Amino acid sequence: MNVKDELRAKARDVEAFLADCLNHRNIPERLRAAMDYSLMAGGKRLRPVLVLVWAELLGLDPEAAMPFAASLELIHTYSLIHDDLPAMDNDDLRRGKPTNHKQFDEATAILAGDGLLTEAFGLMLSAALPPERVVSAAQAVAEAAGARGMVGGQVLDMQYTGKDAVSLEELKTMHSMKTGALITVSCLAGAILAGASAEDLGRADRYGRAIGVSFQIVDDILDVVGDEKTLGKPVGSDQGNDKTTYPKLLGLEESKRQAEKYRDKALECLAPYQGVQADFLRALARYIVDRVQ
Amino acid sequence: MNVKDELRAKARDVEAFLADCLNHRNIPERLRAAMDYSLMAGGKRLRPVLVLVWAELLGLDPEAAMPFAASLELIHTYSLIHDDLPAMDNDDLRRGKPTNHKQFDEATAILAGDGLLTEAFGLMLSAALPPERVVSAAQAVAEAAGARGMVGGQVLDMQYTGKDAVSLEELKTMHSMKTGALITVSCLAGAILAGASAEDLGRADRYGRAIGVSFQIVDDILDVVGDEKTLGKPVGSDQGNDKTTYPKLLGLEESKRQAEKYRDKALECLAPYQGVQADFLRALARYIVDRVQ
Repeated sequence: MNVKDELRAKARDVEAFLADCLNHRNIPERLRAAMDYSLMAGGKRLRPVLVLVWAELLGLDPEAAMPFAASLELIHTYSLIHDDLPAMDNDDLRRGKPTNHKQFDEATAILAGDGLLTEAFGLMLSAALPPERVVSAAQAVAEAAGARGMVGGQVLDMQYTGKDAVSLEELKTMHSMKTGALITVSCLAGAILAGASAEDLGRADRYGRAIGVSFQIVDDILDVVGDEKTLGKPVGSDQGNDKTTYPKLLGLEESKRQAEKYRDKALECLAPYQGVQADFLRALARYIVDRVQ
Repeated sequence: MNVKDELRAKARDVEAFLADCLNHRNIPERLRAAMDYSLMAGGKRLRPVLVLVWAELLGLDPEAAMPFAASLELIHTYSLIHDDLPAMDNDDLRRGKPTNHKQFDEATAILAGDGLLTEAFGLMLSAALPPERVVSAAQAVAEAAGARGMVGGQVLDMQYTGKDAVSLEELKTMHSMKTGALITVSCLAGAILAGASAEDLGRADRYGRAIGVSFQIVDDILDVVGDEKTLGKPVGSDQGNDKTTYPKLLGLEESKRQAEKYRDKALECLAPYQGVQADFLRALARYIVDRVQ
């Protein structure tokens, strides 16, 4: 099985859980429909899969980690709904479908995002695992998703858009907060839930950071050279938005070299591990970068 | 000391904690300023005080409950910021000052709300208390603040605005979700953190529900008969917004009688308790209703 198929197979398990996680809850119908609309709109389910694979790699039954894993997708989904709002990126389409505020309305989209973020923490805290691990993992997620992480990164992204003199350092910090933090904490949370040693926690954290950076660099490259159909979004949208990107600062060739450097960093972190989960994580680190070959 | 002074004194302890809780964190400056602006804009700090008093009543050092207590004010504040947005209530003023999106901008206001909600869970989970209590209390907050509680109540409120045939049952459900749930869970969380018995948890929960209802009825009454200066918001705004209220459905006199009935229910829950904390909770239940005498 290649890594794409394997990722898809793991994503299917996550989707089965997600499809059910808002049911049997006393949520007003219109709100539930809006939350569900974006939650079930597809996507790679990368963050939950990272939680599950790191948990299993370090000895935890992945079923025990599923509610926590799923919560990362709720957080990712809420962030997309709010980012698409007219006051932010003002996008009409997401994965080929109307964005939440286009399908419903702006107020409902804001509240669907708020609801998903709050339910995410409810889901995390429902994990039937030792409470000190749950507290520690959920705290890490709060830090990564909040004002010091994803939300703060979105603010920086808005500040940098249209600004000429964004340095490589600023670009890296912005991306590490906006998208890197949630990817990293997915790996870390899986390890925390498994009761991992300090060494294993460190490797999960560094692996997450490394694939987060290479993922972003490749995303920037694909925005220049990619094919609209493969991406599901308009090519060149970063240029249209006047955003600073890695290719803009480093050129295409050096950007590719950087992506490969971070892929190799990720692979290094996995050196101590054997077995199917480790192999999947290695293949994933390669696949992220191979998208531009 | 009367209950107003006592509430103010307790609020000051909370404010000292709140003033510091976003500092020393790596938050982009504009975002931190926007979060701080609304968090420090005043208010009774009722929800944190309820956490602290119920925790102390049931034997916990209130200092240990402070981070958790403060988190309820972060959640309350985020909900006000999002409710004030143009797509929702479109308010320009809050407590006599420009609303967050007027002072900053709409995108920043949305993100400041998102940041406060996420940091709230980080703060809850940082409480140095037995982790199983922290998990249970934070789970209760997630349920009360989310799609089944506060967020869901806001959706119902929007659906009911301008609609003629809102029943008393619908009005009660909407308020119990939109404002009641967070007040109730403040009492309950204090009790959970203190490691309370099932009986004590039940009383904290019922007390919270009762004062939540009387608080809302009195708010509706004050919107009809109150004085603009005392309230800090325009009198008659509910009528202007075409909202269904208790006085509209029941008349002023019956609304007052209902508020008194719920005050008495709250007092009943406190019957087993003695001491200064119990006396404060009794005085608070009376004060909420006395505002319309």
